[in-house]
Amino acid sequence: MFSGTNLPRVGTYNVNVVLNAIQASQGISRVEIAKHTGLTAQTISVIVRRLIEQGIVQEVGSMPSAGGKPRTSLRINPAAGYAVGVHFDPIEVSVVVVDMTGRELAESHQAIAPGLAPEALIAEAADVARTLLTKLEIPDERVLGVGAACPGPIDQSQGMIISPPRRDRWTEVPIKRLLTQYIGFDVTIDNDANAAAIGERWSGHGRNSSDFAFLYMGTGIGGAIFLSNHIYRGASLNAGEFGHIVVEPSGTPCYCGNRGCLEAMCSPSAIVKEVHSELAVGRASLLADAYQKDPSSVDHKTICLAAAENDDVARRVIERVAEYIANCAVIIANVLDVELVVIGGKRITHVADMYREKVSEALRTRPLARKAHIVRVEISSMANEGAALGAASLVLHANYAPNTADLVSV
Amino acid sequence: MFSGTNLPRVGTYNVNVVLNAIQASQGISRVEIAKHTGLTAQTISVIVRRLIEQGIVQEVGSMPSAGGKPRTSLRINPAAGYAVGVHFDPIEVSVVVVDMTGRELAESHQAIAPGLAPEALIAEAADVARTLLTKLEIPDERVLGVGAACPGPIDQSQGMIISPPRRDRWTEVPIKRLLTQYIGFDVTIDNDANAAAIGERWSGHGRNSSDFAFLYMGTGIGGAIFLSNHIYRGASLNAGEFGHIVVEPSGTPCYCGNRGCLEAMCSPSAIVKEVHSELAVGRASLLADAYQKDPSSVDHKTICLAAAENDDVARRVIERVAEYIANCAVIIANVLDVELVVIGGKRITHVADMYREKVSEALRTRPLARKAHIVRVEISSMANEGAALGAASLVLHANYAPNTADLVSV
Repeated sequence: MFSGTNLPRVGTYNVNVVLNAIQASQGISRVEIAKHTGLTAQTISVIVRRLIEQGIVQEVGSMPSAGGKPRTSLRINPAAGYAVGVHFDPIEVSVVVVDMTGRELAESHQAIAPGLAPEALIAEAADVARTLLTKLEIPDERVLGVGAACPGPIDQSQGMIISPPRRDRWTEVPIKRLLTQYIGFDVTIDNDANAAAIGERWSGHGRNSSDFAFLYMGTGIGGAIFLSNHIYRGASLNAGEFGHIVVEPSGTPCYCGNRGCLEAMCSPSAIVKEVHSELAVGRASLLADAYQKDPSSVDHKTICLAAAENDDVARRVIERVAEYIANCAVIIANVLDVELVVIGGKRITHVADMYREKVSEALRTRPLARKAHIVRVEISSMANEGAALGAASLVLHANYAPNTADLVSV
Repeated sequence: MFSGTNLPRVGTYNVNVVLNAIQASQGISRVEIAKHTGLTAQTISVIVRRLIEQGIVQEVGSMPSAGGKPRTSLRINPAAGYAVGVHFDPIEVSVVVVDMTGRELAESHQAIAPGLAPEALIAEAADVARTLLTKLEIPDERVLGVGAACPGPIDQSQGMIISPPRRDRWTEVPIKRLLTQYIGFDVTIDNDANAAAIGERWSGHGRNSSDFAFLYMGTGIGGAIFLSNHIYRGASLNAGEFGHIVVEPSGTPCYCGNRGCLEAMCSPSAIVKEVHSELAVGRASLLADAYQKDPSSVDHKTICLAAAENDDVARRVIERVAEYIANCAVIIANVLDVELVVIGGKRITHVADMYREKVSEALRTRPLARKAHIVRVEISSMANEGAALGAASLVLHANYAPNTADLVSV
């Protein structure tokens, strides 16, 4: 059933509508806000005055105007507040600090010592964050909160990681409570793909896009869907599992129980396995010597670099992977009809252009609605720090994105 | 950017929230409405009083209540208004009349005479609708409007069919203007899959489901997505094209330019072609004699009936089709994480149980989130008149479904 709405909710919603209009712009006048939002000049004037008094918005000189007096330009005050982002990746922990506009001020990466328990790792991440904030001379009262990107699936109501695939030690870790306890700020958690997508929406390619799909290429392959400016989560909060779309019915078995899932065919470990099996039978390759000496030296990064240098074996494997990703992007286009697909995550550096090219060609030539519009593809502008920056954006997004659902929640 | 909201919009929205709560129930008290919607008793009392005065809602006796006086039960007044639904299928035109609750009062089907121009067909449908209304003694002022389900894609702003695949004569037909002109009531149009899904939401399995996917098996295969109680249409209004998900990468070429689309593998004409090619090489089958005498007598319906009777050839083809549909349902579950998949459309009679069984098993065993929840599958309860009833529901839905988007449209 539906829920009703009332006046205080409308007020909060409109404040966030104004804030969002300012945040999405590179400087905007009150008149322009009115034009974009449909709110009256008087409503906007009252809201903006309060936001300036609170130090969240600032006036930054005047803009030329078509006839009449110049208009005052409004921007988010970068120093109005700060957020910390933490990404718990399987192989390292990244911590970033961003200002109110989502701009990165500092970052740190810690390789994960084998055998370290999740709680010790969480304590360490909290220490690192504290150190960064001290160096930046940011006082506690200016910290809006901490966002954490964790391996999914996550139980939001309990602030807990449930049972991440192949990471047994993280099963049922109450990460929200532990991180809050060690760091002393409010903590917002989400899975890594959603966090990266929210980062993209806040300060990347999604900035001007209310509806886009995000394909997250990490250790595994995940996804997120932005619809009407918010993450679409689905009935069990598991929407956007693009990694488990079957792209090769008779392909490699996947841990999920199926065969030929995108993740089983295209994850870093699948790529490594495929290249190793080619090298094992003696195919000519720049990587052949290294493989002879020490197979483990031919890792995902080495393969991606070799593909970028046109090595035959690496190139062929990466192109096949790109083709599978393209098939998946076409399915996304046919099902969701989004305007944009963003590909991101740590593990696409060096091969991003190859992926973009194949996906772009597929989106231009294969979706049913290609005559109505061509779905764009972009590589995340935050490929390296995507999930950590996204985690910080969780805090900004939670605080300042207008959500029609808030109008009607009981 | 976002749009603001204001008080009159909130009022309309809340009226529709109350109406919807009443419509979705089989009788509901004011207290229960308050519990479900979060609106205050006073707001509900004012809204309900007005709806009763307008004749839209009626009090229908009292319900037992846990301690305290019995509560008055509220229902939609079926006779408050009527809607006409028209479905322009490639081979026939169906017309239905429904009451305010979506219940069918009368129906009519006209085979389409070969060579009849779209305008003549539209004029004929208008005549049929007028005749049904006269027989039912429904006065014009009680008719809320006419809904038309048309082959997509549709340009809503122009009320026009754009370029339906394989139906050249319907290209750029201004169906909304023509039907309004001939029938003399307001006309709402949508594509057949969306119309059928709205019908399902209004009075079928979708009645208690805010998020579901609808797989429409007509002459072609289409789809529709209900999210947060409304059709999700996508950036170019082409979301839910499940028929063009590739289920067999090396499969039959599809008119859309790809190979192995669900539609190319599973449409009625694909099924007929497949069975004919098996019969042509002399496979043992209940259909062999008929095929020898006149291949065209072995049509889609005949094949479905034979499959239901366990004929080897028909059964095998239908089971392969069911497997492809199941693969597609698993993709839908992984991407959209809906709670329910409904399969509907005219062309599934006789094989619906086989489809349901395969899809149900796949949804139980294959989506990544199957441990979090099992996606249900249902066969549309309006298999035969789905799109026509859905078309009528377009009118009811457009008039009475609360839409948070209405709160914020400029």
